Amino acid sequence: MATPRARIDVGILGATGTVGQQFIRILHRNPWFRPTWLAASERSEGKRYADAATWRLPDDLPEGIGDIVVQPCVPNKAPRLIFSALDATTAREVEPAFASAGHIVVSNASSFRMADDVPLLIPEVNADHLSQIARQRRERGWSGAIVTNPNCSTVVLAMVLAPLRQFGLRATVVTTLQAVSGAGYPGVPSLDILGNVIPNIDKEEAKIEAETRKILGACDGGQVSDHPVVVAAHTTRVPVIDGHTMTVSMALDAKPSLADVKQALTSFSGRPQELKLPTAPAAPIVYLEAADRPQPRLDAMRGDGMTVSVGRVRRCPVLDIKLVAMGHNTVRGAAGAAVLNAELMLAEGALEND
Amino acid sequence: MATPRARIDVGILGATGTVGQQFIRILHRNPWFRPTWLAASERSEGKRYADAATWRLPDDLPEGIGDIVVQPCVPNKAPRLIFSALDATTAREVEPAFASAGHIVVSNASSFRMADDVPLLIPEVNADHLSQIARQRRERGWSGAIVTNPNCSTVVLAMVLAPLRQFGLRATVVTTLQAVSGAGYPGVPSLDILGNVIPNIDKEEAKIEAETRKILGACDGGQVSDHPVVVAAHTTRVPVIDGHTMTVSMALDAKPSLADVKQALTSFSGRPQELKLPTAPAAPIVYLEAADRPQPRLDAMRGDGMTVSVGRVRRCPVLDIKLVAMGHNTVRGAAGAAVLNAELMLAEGALEND
Amino acid sequence: MATPRARIDVGILGATGTVGQQFIRILHRNPWFRPTWLAASERSEGKRYADAATWRLPDDLPEGIGDIVVQPCVPNKAPRLIFSALDATTAREVEPAFASAGHIVVSNASSFRMADDVPLLIPEVNADHLSQIARQRRERGWSGAIVTNPNCSTVVLAMVLAPLRQFGLRATVVTTLQAVSGAGYPGVPSLDILGNVIPNIDKEEAKIEAETRKILGACDGGQVSDHPVVVAAHTTRVPVIDGHTMTVSMALDAKPSLADVKQALTSFSGRPQELKLPTAPAAPIVYLEAADRPQPRLDAMRGDGMTVSVGRVRRCPVLDIKLVAMGHNTVRGAAGAAVLNAELMLAEGALEND
Amino acid sequence: MATPRARIDVGILGATGTVGQQFIRILHRNPWFRPTWLAASERSEGKRYADAATWRLPDDLPEGIGDIVVQPCVPNKAPRLIFSALDATTAREVEPAFASAGHIVVSNASSFRMADDVPLLIPEVNADHLSQIARQRRERGWSGAIVTNPNCSTVVLAMVLAPLRQFGLRATVVTTLQAVSGAGYPGVPSLDILGNVIPNIDKEEAKIEAETRKILGACDGGQVSDHPVVVAAHTTRVPVIDGHTMTVSMALDAKPSLADVKQALTSFSGRPQELKLPTAPAAPIVYLEAADRPQPRLDAMRGDGMTVSVGRVRRCPVLDIKLVAMGHNTVRGAAGAAVLNAELMLAEGALEND
Repeated sequence: MATPRARIDVGILGATGTVGQQFIRILHRNPWFRPTWLAASERSEGKRYADAATWRLPDDLPEGIGDIVVQPCVPNKAPRLIFSALDATTAREVEPAFASAGHIVVSNASSFRMADDVPLLIPEVNADHLSQIARQRRERGWSGAIVTNPNCSTVVLAMVLAPLRQFGLRATVVTTLQAVSGAGYPGVPSLDILGNVIPNIDKEEAKIEAETRKILGACDGGQVSDHPVVVAAHTTRVPVIDGHTMTVSMALDAKPSLADVKQALTSFSGRPQELKLPTAPAAPIVYLEAADRPQPRLDAMRGDGMTVSVGRVRRCPVLDIKLVAMGHNTVRGAAGAAVLNAELMLAEGALEND
Repeated sequence: MATPRARIDVGILGATGTVGQQFIRILHRNPWFRPTWLAASERSEGKRYADAATWRLPDDLPEGIGDIVVQPCVPNKAPRLIFSALDATTAREVEPAFASAGHIVVSNASSFRMADDVPLLIPEVNADHLSQIARQRRERGWSGAIVTNPNCSTVVLAMVLAPLRQFGLRATVVTTLQAVSGAGYPGVPSLDILGNVIPNIDKEEAKIEAETRKILGACDGGQVSDHPVVVAAHTTRVPVIDGHTMTVSMALDAKPSLADVKQALTSFSGRPQELKLPTAPAAPIVYLEAADRPQPRLDAMRGDGMTVSVGRVRRCPVLDIKLVAMGHNTVRGAAGAAVLNAELMLAEGALEND
Repeated sequence: MATPRARIDVGILGATGTVGQQFIRILHRNPWFRPTWLAASERSEGKRYADAATWRLPDDLPEGIGDIVVQPCVPNKAPRLIFSALDATTAREVEPAFASAGHIVVSNASSFRMADDVPLLIPEVNADHLSQIARQRRERGWSGAIVTNPNCSTVVLAMVLAPLRQFGLRATVVTTLQAVSGAGYPGVPSLDILGNVIPNIDKEEAKIEAETRKILGACDGGQVSDHPVVVAAHTTRVPVIDGHTMTVSMALDAKPSLADVKQALTSFSGRPQELKLPTAPAAPIVYLEAADRPQPRLDAMRGDGMTVSVGRVRRCPVLDIKLVAMGHNTVRGAAGAAVLNAELMLAEGALEND
Repeated sequence: MATPRARIDVGILGATGTVGQQFIRILHRNPWFRPTWLAASERSEGKRYADAATWRLPDDLPEGIGDIVVQPCVPNKAPRLIFSALDATTAREVEPAFASAGHIVVSNASSFRMADDVPLLIPEVNADHLSQIARQRRERGWSGAIVTNPNCSTVVLAMVLAPLRQFGLRATVVTTLQAVSGAGYPGVPSLDILGNVIPNIDKEEAKIEAETRKILGACDGGQVSDHPVVVAAHTTRVPVIDGHTMTVSMALDAKPSLADVKQALTSFSGRPQELKLPTAPAAPIVYLEAADRPQPRLDAMRGDGMTVSVGRVRRCPVLDIKLVAMGHNTVRGAAGAAVLNAELMLAEGALEND
C-alpha cells in the first residue's frame, strides 16, 4: 500500500459552503492531505477565507486557514488533488476543466455520478469501480479524472444493502427522515421546518433509486452493470441538525434469519479497513440492540461520523426484513466520503500519474 | 335520522389527561352533547376540575368546566353516554363495569379494539360495523356497550386505504412520523426528541398492522372478516406537536392510473357526510397538489382537525403507488374520532335503549 | 363614531410576503375593509396572486384572493386606503409616492416611524397622536398620509408600560425572546436556530429603545414629546414560530404594590375598546396567575392574536418590579396592529378627505 | 503542587441520572481520578450499571463502567473521594452521613451551598473559600467534608462578574435562556417546550440572586462576607439541549470603557490555570467579536465545555454595560465544575487527612 511521506497539498472547490467547511474541518486533521488552496465563487475571490466565509461549525476555524486567499474556480496553480463541494450546475462546467487540466477531482457534486465512465464510490462497497478511471481518461482524453461519492442518503442505504446482496436482494422500500444540514446554507427556512415535517426533497428520490443500483453493481473492464435491486424511496425533511435516519423494508430471496442479517451487517468490512485508511472507521456498520436506536442526535458522530448505525432488524410482513439505519449526512454522506475516496485512490496508486 | 332536541349530558373518563382535555374542548362546542360529568384517577377525585388538571391547550379552559367536581371512575350517577380517554390498563377494568351498568362507552383506549364483538369504527369507512353491538350485548349480557376508535396512526392510514380497496388493495408498507402529543403528558422527554428522531413507538406497529385489517373488513351478522391487505409498519417519533405524517407504498392489483387514485381519494365520502353529523368534515380526505404537502404544522387543523390531507400520489417502483398522508392525531386520531362515533350512533339510533 | 355602510376596498403593498399574507388573512374576515388590490415587486407583477405567492399560513388562501392579478407598487388605480407590508428600503420610496397621490398609507414598515410628523400608533395607548396627520399634510403638502405601527417587540413592551406610567415609570431593562416569523421568509435559516439561541437581532434594540419613548410620549398640537423612560433592550431569537416573549424589569418611582401593578395592567383599556373596533380585543392585556405563563405556544392567539399576555409580576431587587410579557408578533406586532390603526382612523373620521 | 502518582479511585452518588452520567464521562478520561464506585437509589441497587442506567450521552458508555454493580447510597466501602449528583432532598440526608464517616463529598446538589461553613466554589474565582473546610470540620466534628459548586446558571454569571468587581460592581439584571438538560431526565416534557418558551424555572431565580453574592464575597478566617452586588434574575427555559445563554446588564461605579471590560474578561485567569489542573480550560472566558455570538449550539463545548463564552459588550442605557454570556450547563455548570473543585482540592492539599 502506498502512503505519503509528507502531507500532500490539496485544494477545495466551493470551500465557503456547508460541505466545503466540513472538508476543511476533516482535511485539517488528515495525516495524508493538507488543505492549502481554497476556491469559491466570484463574490469570495481575493478575500481572506476568514472574511469570505461565515464559519458555522461548532469547532473553531482551524489555524492557518483563515489567512488563505480565496481563489477563482480555475485550475491555474491549483494542487493536483482537488476536492469539490460545488453545486451541481457549477460542477458540470468546472470539474471537467480541472480533470482536463490534469487534476484529480474528488467530487461530492451530483453532476457526473451517473456517467458511464465515472466511479460512484463507497470504498467499503465498490472499491473495484476505480477501474472506470482508465476508461474515463481514454474516452475523454483527460490526464486527470473525476471520481464521485453518492448522495447523502444513498450512502447510508447502499452501505446497509451491500452486505445483504448475498441473500438475494431483490427490492427495497425506504423512507428517509433527513437532517437540515443536507440542504446547505441558508438552506431550509426555519419557518418551514420548526415543529414540522416536509414530505419531499426535490430530486432526491430519483437519485436514491438510481445511484443505489450503480453502486451495488458489478464492474468488469471499467463497465458497471447495475445491480437488479428495485428501489422505492420516500424522502422527508425533519427538524434535525445532522444525521439522516431511514426505515428500510427489503425483499431477500434467500429468506435469511434475523440473526443471519445482523451477522452480515456487523461483520461487514472492506478495503478501507484492510488498508487502514486514516478516515476509515473501525466498523463501517454498528448494530445497536436497544429498541429505540439508532437516533441521529446520539449516533451520528459514531466512528467520527463515518460509521452507519443500524437497529431494529425484524420481520417485514410485506417484504422480508425491516430495519432502521442512520448515518451522518455531511461526514459519511459528503465530505468524509470524498476524503475516504481520495485515501483509497492514494493507497491503491490511483493518484499517481500514468 | 335521529337528532337530539336538546344537548345530551355526557361524561368523560380520564378527563384530566391530554386526550381528556381534547374531549372537553371538542364536546364543549358540540351541538348534540354537553360534558357535565368528569372522572379521573384517585389523585384528582373530589377536586374542582380547574384544580385537578393543568390545562395545556392553546384555547382557555371552556367556561363552566373548571368548577365541575372530579368523580371517581365508577358508574354511579354518571350519564348514560360516556367517552373514555383512559389508558389501556385502566380501561380494561373500568369500561366493562360501565357497559355492564348500562352505559354506552365510546372509547379511545386500545383495550377492546381487537375484541371480536366490539366495533372498531371510522364512521366514513365502516359504519356498518355498528351491528357488532347487538352481538356484544347478547354475548356479554350487557345493557350498555363498548365502541372503539382506532389507534391515532391507524385512522389516517385506514381512511386513505378505504377508497382504494376497489383497486384490489393487496399490501402496504407505511412509515409514520408521529407527533409528540400522541404520547400524552408528560409523554416524551424533551431531551429525547429535540433535534432528534426516535425510530420506534412501543407496540404501535403491531396495532397498525392488525387494526387496519379489521377496520377495512366486511361485517356480516355482527361478524367482521379481516380485509386481506398485508400491512408492514415502521413507526417513528419526530419533534412535531400535532399531526401524524406517513409515507405509504401500496400494491393495487387493478393497476389504477394516478388520476384514478386521486379521484378515488377526493371523491371519498361516507355516512357522516350523508347524515351531516356535526363533527363530520365536509371532505374526509383533501388532496393537495403542491409538491411539499401535506405538512403537519400547516395542514393538521384542516376540517377542524377531522380531514386527512394527502399529497404526492406517484408510481412506486416496488409496489404500485406511493403517497403521503397526514392527519391530526388527537382530533381525528382520538377525541374527535370518538365524538364522531357517538354522533353516528345517535343518528343511527344506536344510543337508544333496546 | 363613523362606521362604513359597506366594506371599503383596500390595497396591500408587499402582499406576497409573511406580513402581507397576514394582512390578507385578517382583512379577508374584517367587516369594514375588503382586500381587492394587491401589489408586490416586479417579480410577481402581472401574475395571479395564487401563482405569485407561496401561501404559508395554516388557514388556506381565502376564496377570491387567488385570482387577483398582482399590481406594481404605484398609486395608479389603487384604492384610497393602503396597507403597507413593504421592507424599509422599498417603503422609503414607495410610501411617500402613495401619500403624495392622496392615499392613506397604514404602514408596518420602519422607515417613517420616527419622523416628527408621522404617528407611531398603538390605538389603546396613544390614539391622540393621530393629530400629527394634520401637521404632516401641512408640512409635506400631501393630500394623503402615512401612519405607522411600532416594531413587533415594541408593541408588546409599550402596551405593558403604558398603564404603569401613572407610577412614575423611570427606566426599564427588557430582554426579548423573539419568534422566527418576525424575520419574514425565508428569514432565519434552520441551521442557525434549531436547538439554538441567536443573541442578537440586527437594529432591533435601537428600535425598541427609541420607539417606546415616542409611543408613550404626550402629543400637543401635533408635536410629540418623548416620554422620559430610559429603555435598555437585549434582543434574542429563539426557535418559536409565533409570539415574542420578554422579561421586563422596571423602575417605578411611586413604588406601587404588586397588587397595584396587576390591577393597572388588567384594567387597562383604550379607544379601541370604547369604540368597539372590530379588531380590538375585549382586553388589551390579560394577566395570567400561573407561575409558568405566558408561553408563546399557548398564549399567542389570545384575543385572536391581539391581546398581550402578562405574568409573574414580582419584586425586582435592582429596579422595582419584574414581569414577563408576550404578544403575537405578526398579528398584534404587525398586520393586526395596522388594521386596528386603520379602524381607529375610520372611526375617528381620519380617513375622510379634508 | 500535589499531583497523584496514580489515578485515585472515586465514587459517584446518583450515578444513573443526567449529571451522574456526565460525571462518568468526564471522570473516565480524567488523569487524576478513576470512577470505580457507583451508587444510586434502591431501584438500581445491585444491578450492573449498564442495566440500571439508560445511557443518554452521544459518546458510548465508557469501557469497564457497565459491569460495575450499583451500590446503595451508604458510606460502607466507598472510596474517600465522592462526587454527588444527588437531588437536593436526598443530598440533605446522604451527604452529611458520608462527610461524617470521613469522606470528602464534592457535591453538585443545592442542599448545602448556602451553609455558612460550606465552600461554594468556582476555582477560578474563589479558591480561597476552601479555608471554610477547617471551620466546617471543627464545628460539625467531621473528619470528612462537603464542598459544593454553584447552580448551573450562577456559575456562568459569577465567572463573568468576577473580573468586573474591580470596576465597582454594584448591580446586575440577568435573564437566562436555559437548556433542557439542566432539568435532568425525564425533565421537561416535549409538549411543554417544543417551539415554546417557559418563562420560569422553579426556585432558580432565588438561587442565582443569593449564590452569586456568596461566590464573589471575600473570605476571612473561614468566614465569607457576601459581595454587595445586587442581583435581579429572570429565568426562562428554551428548546436547546445544552448551554445556558444569558443577557446581562451591569452597574459599574468606575464607568470603565468597553475596551476595559473586554480586556478584563479576556485576561481573566485563576488558580486552575496557574496549577494547570487537568480539567481547567486554557481560558476560563473567551470573548467573541461576532455580532451574533455566543450561541449554545456552536459555543457550549468550547474548552471541552469548561470555557464561558461572552459577546456583545456594549453600553446599557439604564445600568452601565450590557453583554451576553453562555456556558455549558452540565459540564461547567455541574459535573465539570465538581471535578475541577476536586482537582483544586487535591492540588492544594485539601484532600489529605488532617
